Formats: sequence, structure tokens, C-alpha cells
Amino acid sequence: MIKHKVAVYPGSFDPLTFGHIDIIERALEIFDEVIVSIFVNPNKKPLFTLEERIDILKNVLKDYSGVKIDNFSGLLTDYLREKKIKVVIRGLRAVSDLEYEFQYANANRTLYPEIETVFFMPRLRYSYLSSSVVREIARFGGDVSKMVPQYVVEKIKNKYTNK
Amino acid sequence: MIKHKVAVYPGSFDPLTFGHIDIIERALEIFDEVIVSIFVNPNKKPLFTLEERIDILKNVLKDYSGVKIDNFSGLLTDYLREKKIKVVIRGLRAVSDLEYEFQYANANRTLYPEIETVFFMPRLRYSYLSSSVVREIARFGGDVSKMVPQYVVEKIKNKYTNK
Amino acid sequence: MIKHKVAVYPGSFDPLTFGHIDIIERALEIFDEVIVSIFVNPNKKPLFTLEERIDILKNVLKDYSGVKIDNFSGLLTDYLREKKIKVVIRGLRAVSDLEYEFQYANANRTLYPEIETVFFMPRLRYSYLSSSVVREIARFGGDVSKMVPQYVVEKIKNKYTNK
Amino acid sequence: MIKHKVAVYPGSFDPLTFGHIDIIERALEIFDEVIVSIFVNPNKKPLFTLEERIDILKNVLKDYSGVKIDNFSGLLTDYLREKKIKVVIRGLRAVSDLEYEFQYANANRTLYPEIETVFFMPRLRYSYLSSSVVREIARFGGDVSKMVPQYVVEKIKNKYTNK
Amino acid sequence: MIKHKVAVYPGSFDPLTFGHIDIIERALEIFDEVIVSIFVNPNKKPLFTLEERIDILKNVLKDYSGVKIDNFSGLLTDYLREKKIKVVIRGLRAVSDLEYEFQYANANRTLYPEIETVFFMPRLRYSYLSSSVVREIARFGGDVSKMVPQYVVEKIKNKYTNK
Amino acid sequence: MIKHKVAVYPGSFDPLTFGHIDIIERALEIFDEVIVSIFVNPNKKPLFTLEERIDILKNVLKDYSGVKIDNFSGLLTDYLREKKIKVVIRGLRAVSDLEYEFQYANANRTLYPEIETVFFMPRLRYSYLSSSVVREIARFGGDVSKMVPQYVVEKIKNKYTNK
Repeated sequence: MIKHKVAVYPGSFDPLTFGHIDIIERALEIFDEVIVSIFVNPNKKPLFTLEERIDILKNVLKDYSGVKIDNFSGLLTDYLREKKIKVVIRGLRAVSDLEYEFQYANANRTLYPEIETVFFMPRLRYSYLSSSVVREIARFGGDVSKMVPQYVVEKIKNKYTNK
Repeated sequence: MIKHKVAVYPGSFDPLTFGHIDIIERALEIFDEVIVSIFVNPNKKPLFTLEERIDILKNVLKDYSGVKIDNFSGLLTDYLREKKIKVVIRGLRAVSDLEYEFQYANANRTLYPEIETVFFMPRLRYSYLSSSVVREIARFGGDVSKMVPQYVVEKIKNKYTNK
Repeated sequence: MIKHKVAVYPGSFDPLTFGHIDIIERALEIFDEVIVSIFVNPNKKPLFTLEERIDILKNVLKDYSGVKIDNFSGLLTDYLREKKIKVVIRGLRAVSDLEYEFQYANANRTLYPEIETVFFMPRLRYSYLSSSVVREIARFGGDVSKMVPQYVVEKIKNKYTNK
Repeated sequence: MIKHKVAVYPGSFDPLTFGHIDIIERALEIFDEVIVSIFVNPNKKPLFTLEERIDILKNVLKDYSGVKIDNFSGLLTDYLREKKIKVVIRGLRAVSDLEYEFQYANANRTLYPEIETVFFMPRLRYSYLSSSVVREIARFGGDVSKMVPQYVVEKIKNKYTNK
Repeated sequence: MIKHKVAVYPGSFDPLTFGHIDIIERALEIFDEVIVSIFVNPNKKPLFTLEERIDILKNVLKDYSGVKIDNFSGLLTDYLREKKIKVVIRGLRAVSDLEYEFQYANANRTLYPEIETVFFMPRLRYSYLSSSVVREIARFGGDVSKMVPQYVVEKIKNKYTNK
Repeated sequence: MIKHKVAVYPGSFDPLTFGHIDIIERALEIFDEVIVSIFVNPNKKPLFTLEERIDILKNVLKDYSGVKIDNFSGLLTDYLREKKIKVVIRGLRAVSDLEYEFQYANANRTLYPEIETVFFMPRLRYSYLSSSVVREIARFGGDVSKMVPQYVVEKIKNKYTNK
């Protein structure tokens, strides 16, 4: 049996949080390569453009060997098929996550039965953390330095100063 | 970074179900070796003795290359430390599972911070299946042939005929 | 298509509560006959014997036309097959109920695919009520008159006075 | 006591899925007539117009005797009162469903105390399926043929080709 | 140790419901002063303007000694710091509430570690009630007189008559 | 309106954990007096006797002014009535807690309507922690020093050495 040593970690990463990095570090314990892939959702207006999110990922994750940065639009399963990758990484924080993740993972299995979703559990201290919480706090000028890397803190400051 | 290619799948396996086998197959997609390790709980009276459970695992899983059978008593973290293994595999079926699994995984992290728990999601058709459901049905002579391998069906029959 | 007009409401009814009666009343809105069937669990020591529970059901439910009292041991699906009944009634109070009920209903479907489980939702005021809460309060001499019919209140009093 | 033999199955059905059909089939085991009634929500822009959804329901459900197609806007309870129907059918898939359904059923009870909500549980294989999942996959050209009837597959294709 | 005798009950109160009043009454059992503070969310278009919501709170809560009415925009933690208040009151109705509340309370703790969130549980009869349910029913002309005070019933009537 | 400044924190405390202490500290921010009251459950065999648990509470909590130690058997509501106390403190860690706590709080309200249950949320790092997890780990000789105070660590050691 061929072992799958490459996995995709898909997400909006709008912006990248310490919770995402925690999951990436865990995935790197097991996979030779983790492709952090930004999902470009045509229906949502993100805080950071795709280019800005790529820039953030590249800067913050540059010292992790085994991490690649990518992006995709459309269906995750189409993207995986094209890339010939069968493993998806997801973080599980709470009960509400689980139901969404199960729905998502099952829809993906229907579309692409060979796909495997592997779930990791972040540190407790990140169990409440999400990009939307960060955006909500940042919007009102709150301090997000315990939630996102310093590089992101600065990008957020620029974003709201220039507006 | 050293990649962990060996993982332990701990459980009571009293008895082994199709749900367990489903998780083992998924784990084998990623890990070079999966150690299916029977937890011997001194506080519970199992349906099958340790020897019977080892016999079942050996027979049913004999054709899966990469699977080893083992057992342990005491703390999982002590067992993992002794074996020098850092990855634990768990199946996640439902919301109630999640909370127990989070509690268990977090207790393990406190005792052994380097440990990593990796969760897999079984096929939907096994999402209700557990060893205790099988035991409950078997106890009343119900047909468990869609829930456990034929080898287990027979062992269960013997168990209740000889009683 | 033949319509099913008879349904079984299985349970321990140890003792019958206002919550159970609420579900029975709802089921009677739809089914011509509701068989309230006491499950005799050989592994549990009940507060009330089977005979006492039958007596309670007969007395409290005597004015509901369309209600029959019965009991069974073993698998619910075997009981239903023998009775040629395909509909099971269950009350749903809360999230934790749901997962147990789904597991139970799915196990039953595996054993007897034609079975149909129909769920009713009790009045909010009974959404916390269960036989085990009643037993727990009764054990310490608490007032359960808002939780169970007067007939049951008296049976409980006798039970604890005679002990 | 008058038994209620007619029930309304309300929903957006945007579009009809195999999950909805599964619930309809279960309801038909018990009720003489099941009115599948499309809720026209003035605040949401549907994928399919009311006329298209009626057309889909009529075509896909034409061989089910006992099924009627209808639609309503405004409050479900006003619609039920006008129709003199007291039973509502709902499918229950998961924990998150339950809380929404309880809120909805309780609000309806406050507005119309005689109303009864009857819950059915779909096949496990449809437990992740929802119209919004179908729309999401369809939007990106994914294959939804395991999720909706062939007639809907074609309507979806036309919808996205003509855009 | 200084005891905190003043607490803030933040919310949109769009509109005030009997569920909110229930929580306020419970909080008044413990705190000398409860500041009911309307959160002005610049991203949402409310049914009632801030002025209308203040008017409703003032009228409906005028006989509760110990209640003050206030409002804030921006981060709750900034508002609390400015007011030198450390206790936040929240109502807990259901499981889905809990996860949102935990996320919210934890984000607040990260921003302002001295903050304390105190949860109260409303009467069962209000456990399904929310402002959004009220708005939804009111929008279609439904009777909300069991959900909100008479003063709010009239304001809602005016709102929809004048539209 | 008379404000309640005294509250009871009931529990088994078998043994006291850092999670309990966290809740006590939070309650002391608000209440003038917190009575930590050990529930003596005649149906359970505890790890520590009542005397040992009282000794632990007295030692570990001796520097908290405003804390009293007590114990009770029977119904919490009877105990509260006798003590003329109306406020109960409970910790809320997770979703499964919530449902149990709601059931418990609602049963208490039925027995004693004036009772008020106030919920606090412990630090995230204690959100997995429970006395039963501690007992389970201690039983196998695991290190519980991050879960319970040093005084309890020693009592546990003695307990298992003397056995």
C-alpha cells in the first residue's frame, strides 16, 4: 500500500492565526509535505486579498521546511484530483466545528471517495480562536497580538489605518 | 524534523467491529505501521478475555500489512513513552465522542506533551456502531453480522452458547 | 401503500412521568393505537418491579382510549417483528438524547430495516424531566408531585416508607 | 379523539434532495396525505424560482400517491390554520438541526398550541446532505448526481449553462 | 478582596424580549446595579434604531430599581475598561449558545484578563426565545405578545404599519 | 430587593482540582461568602472519605477569606432551604456539562423556585479537567501535579501506597 506523505491544509486564512500555525506544526509531525492552500471564495469579500494572504503565509511560514503555499478556487476535490493528493488536514476545536467538518468531509467523500480527512486538535489556548474573531476584534482596533503573529498584527494595522 | 510513521490505535476492542477496521484502513493510508493495542481495563469485566481479543485481532487483521497487535494496561502515555511512539489514532463518530476524546487527548497532552492525537472519521454507515451496541445486541441473540466480521460473529455465538 | 396506524412506545417507565404522558398524548393525535411497552432489562435493578410498573401504567393511562399496556424483554426489533408492528415512538428532549436515540434507531434499522422511528418533542416544562431524576429526588424524600401523577407519588411514598 | 392523517412537510426545497425524498417516503408510511409545501422566503434569493421548484417537485414526486404539492409565504402557523392541518413533518439529521428545530417548533407552539411536529430520521447516507451543500457543489460544477434526482441534476446544469 | 457589585448586560436588544427581562431579574438578585447596555453594531441594520431601543428599555424596565440603561459601540472590553466594570452577564439557553458564548467570553478574557462572565439560565419557557425569532414572526404579522412586553408589541405594530 | 451575597458551591470534590479552585476564585469576585459544600452521595464509593475531603478543602483553601467549608447529604434544595441560601455556583466546561447542569438546575427550580444557579467558566487550561480524570490517572500512578494542588498530590500518593 502506498503511503500518503503529502497533505493539503485548505482554508481562507483571512488572516492566518496562531491556531492555524498550531495545526500546521502538528501536521508536519506526520506528513513530509503540507500544502497550505488558500481557498478563494468568489462569494465572500475577504479582509485581505489573495496576494496579501499569500504574502502573509510566505513570511510567517518561511522557516517551516516541508510547507508549501498554494491557492485554489472551485471545489476542493477538483483541486486535489488535479494535484493527485488524497489527504486533507483540518483542525477541530469544538462541537460546532465537528458538525460542519463532518458535513464538509462527507460531501467531499461523495465527490471523491479516495479522499481522506485527518483531524488535529489545537492547543486548548487556541480552542476559541478563529479568523472571524480576529477580524471582529481588529475592526474595532482591539489588540490581536496574542491571536496572530506579529507580521499579521502589522498588516492589520496598515489595513485599518489606510482605510 | 523527524516524521512519525508509526501510530498506536488504542481501544478495548471488545469486540472488534467494522468501525474499528474502517479506522485502521484509513490510518494505514498514512502510517507505515499501525499498532492496534488492546487496553486492559482492570475495572471492567469484558465480554472477551484479552487472549480472545488478541486471537480475534490476529485473525481478522492478518492480511493487513503494517498492522501489529499489542496490549497494555495502565496509562496510555506510559505505554507510548516506553514504546517511544508519539502518535495516537482515534475514530470520531459523533458529537458525544468529541467531548470525551478532547478530554482524553488533553489529559494525555498534560501527561506527555509531545503526544499527537490524529482523528479519522469512519464511513457514515458505521457512525452509530460501537462495541457496546454489538454486545447489547449479541446478548439478546440479535444478528450482528453487519456490524462485526464473520470470525467475530462465530466467537460471539460460541460465547453465548457455552454460557 | 399500507399506512401504519399502530405504534409502540418502548421504555423502562421506572416510573412513568408527566413527560412520558405528554409523549403518549402526542402520539395519540396520530396513531389509532399506541402500545406503551415496558422494557424489562435483566441487567438493571429497577425501583419498581414489572408488576408495579404495569399497575401504574394501567391506572394512570386507563382513560386514554387507544392505549394498550405491554412489556417485553430481549431486542425491541424481535418484539416488533413478533407483534408485526413497524413504528416506534420516542421522545426527544435534548441534544444528548438525540445522539443516543440516533444510535439506538440506527442499530434497530440494521436489525430490522422496515422499522420506522417517529420522534415527538415534549412540552418545554418537561424537557429536563426523566425517570432517573424522579428516582434521585424520591430517594431523598423530595417532592415529585410536579413530575409524576398523584398515583405514582403515592407508590413512591409506600416504596420508601416500607424500606 | 380525531386522528390526524394529513401532514405538511414545509421547506425551501431549493432544490429537492434525496434527503427530502427519504423523509417524504417515511412520512407516507404513516400519513394518508403529505403536503410538500414550498416556503417562499421574501428575504432570500433562491437558486430556483418558485415555479421551477414546483415543477421539480411535481416531476420527481409524481409517482408517490398521497403526496400533494403546495406553497406558502408568511408564517407556517397561519398557513396551517388556514388549511386546518395540525401536523408538521421535519427531518432530523444532526445535533445542530435539533436546536434549530426545537426553536422553530417551540415558536410554532406558542403561536398555535394545537400544532404537532413529528420528526423523522433520514438514512445515514443522507445525514450530511442539505440543499445548501448541493447548491455549493453545483455552483462550482461538481457532480451532485448522488445527492439529487436526475431531473434536478439536469435543471442545475441548465441553470449554470444559461448563466 | 473587593467584591464586584455592578455588572453589564450587553446585547442588541432588537427588541427586548421576556427572555432578556428574565435574565435581568436574576442578575438583580445578586448585583446592586445592572447596566443593560445596547451594543450598536455598525455592520447590522437593526429593526429598531438605537433611540427606539433606548426608549423601549427605559419604559419597560423603569420599575426595576438597580437597572441603568446605556449603549456602546466598538469592543465590549474597551467599554468595560472605560466604565471600570469587570463583570459581564449573559444568558445561556442552549448548547449552540454555549459555544458562541465560550468563544466570546474567551476572546474577551484575552483582551481583558480581569473580566468575569457570569451566566444565568432563563426559565424553560423562554429557552427557545430570541430577538431574531421575534423579528421573524413580527415581520409576517404574527402574534408576539407571549414573547415581548406589551409596550414592544405596540412598537412592532407601528413599525410594520408605517412601513 | 435584597441582594444575595452568599452562595453555595456544591460538589463531590473527590478530590479538589485546580478547576474547582478556579471557579471558587471567580465566585469570590462577586459573593461575600462562598460555602464550598461537599455532597455526600450514599450510592457512590469515593476515593477520599468525607473527613479526608474536608481536610483537603480546609488546607488548600485556608488563605481564601470568604470561603467556608461544609457538607450535606440528601437534596441540595433541602440543604439550601435549611441554610436560607438561594444561590448555587456551578462551573461550565463543555457542552456535555451544560445539558447535565440544565437538567440539575431545572430539577432544583421545580423543588425550590427561588433558587438561582450562577454559572462560571473556568480557564481554558482547566476545561478538560475533572475529578474523575484525576482519579483515573492517579489510579495508574500518573503525575497529576498539573491538575491538583500539591497537598492533594501527596494525599493521593499516600492513598495508593497504603493500599
